[in-house]
Amino acid sequence: MIETPYLLFLGDAPDALAAKVAQGIKDWRPDNAIGQFRMEGCNADMGLPDMTLAEAKAAGVRTLVIGVANRGGIISQAWKKILVNALEEGFDLASGLHNLLRDEADLVAVAQATGRKLHDVRVPTVQYPIANGVKRTGKRCLAVGTDCSVGKMYTALCMDREMRARGMKCSFRATGQTGILITGDGVPLDAVIADFMAGSIEWLTPDNDPDHWDLIEGQGSLFHVSYSGVTLALIHGGQPDALVVCHEPKRAHMRGLPGYRLPTLEAVRDAALAMAKVANPACVVVGYSINTQHMAEDEARAYLADVEARLGLPATDPFRFGAEKLVDALEALT
Amino acid sequence: MIETPYLLFLGDAPDALAAKVAQGIKDWRPDNAIGQFRMEGCNADMGLPDMTLAEAKAAGVRTLVIGVANRGGIISQAWKKILVNALEEGFDLASGLHNLLRDEADLVAVAQATGRKLHDVRVPTVQYPIANGVKRTGKRCLAVGTDCSVGKMYTALCMDREMRARGMKCSFRATGQTGILITGDGVPLDAVIADFMAGSIEWLTPDNDPDHWDLIEGQGSLFHVSYSGVTLALIHGGQPDALVVCHEPKRAHMRGLPGYRLPTLEAVRDAALAMAKVANPACVVVGYSINTQHMAEDEARAYLADVEARLGLPATDPFRFGAEKLVDALEALT
Repeated sequence: MIETPYLLFLGDAPDALAAKVAQGIKDWRPDNAIGQFRMEGCNADMGLPDMTLAEAKAAGVRTLVIGVANRGGIISQAWKKILVNALEEGFDLASGLHNLLRDEADLVAVAQATGRKLHDVRVPTVQYPIANGVKRTGKRCLAVGTDCSVGKMYTALCMDREMRARGMKCSFRATGQTGILITGDGVPLDAVIADFMAGSIEWLTPDNDPDHWDLIEGQGSLFHVSYSGVTLALIHGGQPDALVVCHEPKRAHMRGLPGYRLPTLEAVRDAALAMAKVANPACVVVGYSINTQHMAEDEARAYLADVEARLGLPATDPFRFGAEKLVDALEALT
Repeated sequence: MIETPYLLFLGDAPDALAAKVAQGIKDWRPDNAIGQFRMEGCNADMGLPDMTLAEAKAAGVRTLVIGVANRGGIISQAWKKILVNALEEGFDLASGLHNLLRDEADLVAVAQATGRKLHDVRVPTVQYPIANGVKRTGKRCLAVGTDCSVGKMYTALCMDREMRARGMKCSFRATGQTGILITGDGVPLDAVIADFMAGSIEWLTPDNDPDHWDLIEGQGSLFHVSYSGVTLALIHGGQPDALVVCHEPKRAHMRGLPGYRLPTLEAVRDAALAMAKVANPACVVVGYSINTQHMAEDEARAYLADVEARLGLPATDPFRFGAEKLVDALEALT
């Protein structure tokens, strides 16, 4: 577990998109994010108090979280200076970068000397089991998508928030770097060894109270040829009782695959449900989560109404219009 | 690449099944296997000349291949003595064991001192790319199965042999430890990091002559909840033009999953083909490969006739009755 609260390091982020990890933490665990650290030329802003390391220390910060994607895959010298100072100031460091903190000799040396921790959430720290397929108690909902990065994590987090507001028992289960930095733990599924993928998800979503829901963050898509294996491991390891199909209507092609068109909602519904029924014959699709960020409100509402009419299930943009419909559908199952 | 020819180390194999890696090499690359080394109490026999290390040296052996699964996952002291002697005698060592040769300090030290190589084929040695989904030249055939260990590797090897006999251009592409030890290279897919699974298969089956066939060893099953993600990565990374569906009719349940019944051939055909069409819309199922090892010949022939009548495509046990029908079906495609 990563100690909270966090100071969000935005570095020299060229734009807001580069700081999407920080944005996720700020949106979903605002209590954990009490300040931001921006370097000269930073073009991202979380609207949090700008703090020096000393100010963050005084405010009770325990961990500096790298909330920005680095350029060119390396930790620059400009960043290093601040990261080393942060360790010396008494903060742990947490990062989801490909360039691991633990591979930087100077950071390792300073962390050792100061007794601080380096959390590389991209790397699994657990020896996961091979999946055994045994039916677990409790309920699970998995977000599946037409493509990568269509809003599966936000969908699960929106549902988690709505369910908490209703007093339902639930846990958001992170399966990616941003999700792990938001919640403080989870499985970095894309970095797990092939044989243990489904087992890692069984480990992440263990037996629970009969009325408890795990809201499992989805990854990739059954129709994304680069990552589809990860998606299927989630479907079989997660044993979902309910699927929410996620989509972003304005995509011209699959992310990173110019030659590939997005599948229809119907195709994803049918393929994901058929595969989910292997592990849990009772699984159902409960609704559609549409990412309407690139649509005006009228267009968005018309699109959602069309999906509902065509597919006969609730459709919403849970981040824009609320997750009530999706949570109603889960409640109706139990 | 692992240097040939091999001496097959059968150790203290309690039965023939424990030596199935050696059996695979002997069945498929008999020219590479010029002798066997059996310890006291060994109950496996490949029918090869029993050789001392000195005799193997004189016969031209370059590599001692561990052709037996070890008990309890550790390399015993009894084995160690022979492995160390083999290094000193001038042989490389090759192994597909979970217990890696490179994790044994004594073997590493002796290999270094003698300038010999330790090949752990369970561990990837290549930094695989992320799959890009770009269409490649040449043809590819993938074996998919109702379950694990139903004969997908033997099916691809039987087809490879038949195609070579006809003078067709083809390559068997190994994706598992035994296959790699048979051919000397390949991708140990179950040990690849999740994000790179499909990319490793693109790497394994690159652009080729228009009339060249890759015969890709399958892994797992879309319906095996422990390993299905590996299977889907093969389907999407392999971009197959042709699928052969493999089955073993006498299984009571999915391997290692007592609660799970095997899917029907129809279910596997439909699910695998739908997924394969994402990467290659022209993909077709060309036939069925039935592992009839637990059936008398009459029963086997009746079963195959029934599959052909029911599913309208050729069915054979390629190891028992030949792969002609399956290769005819591939030839008909081109």
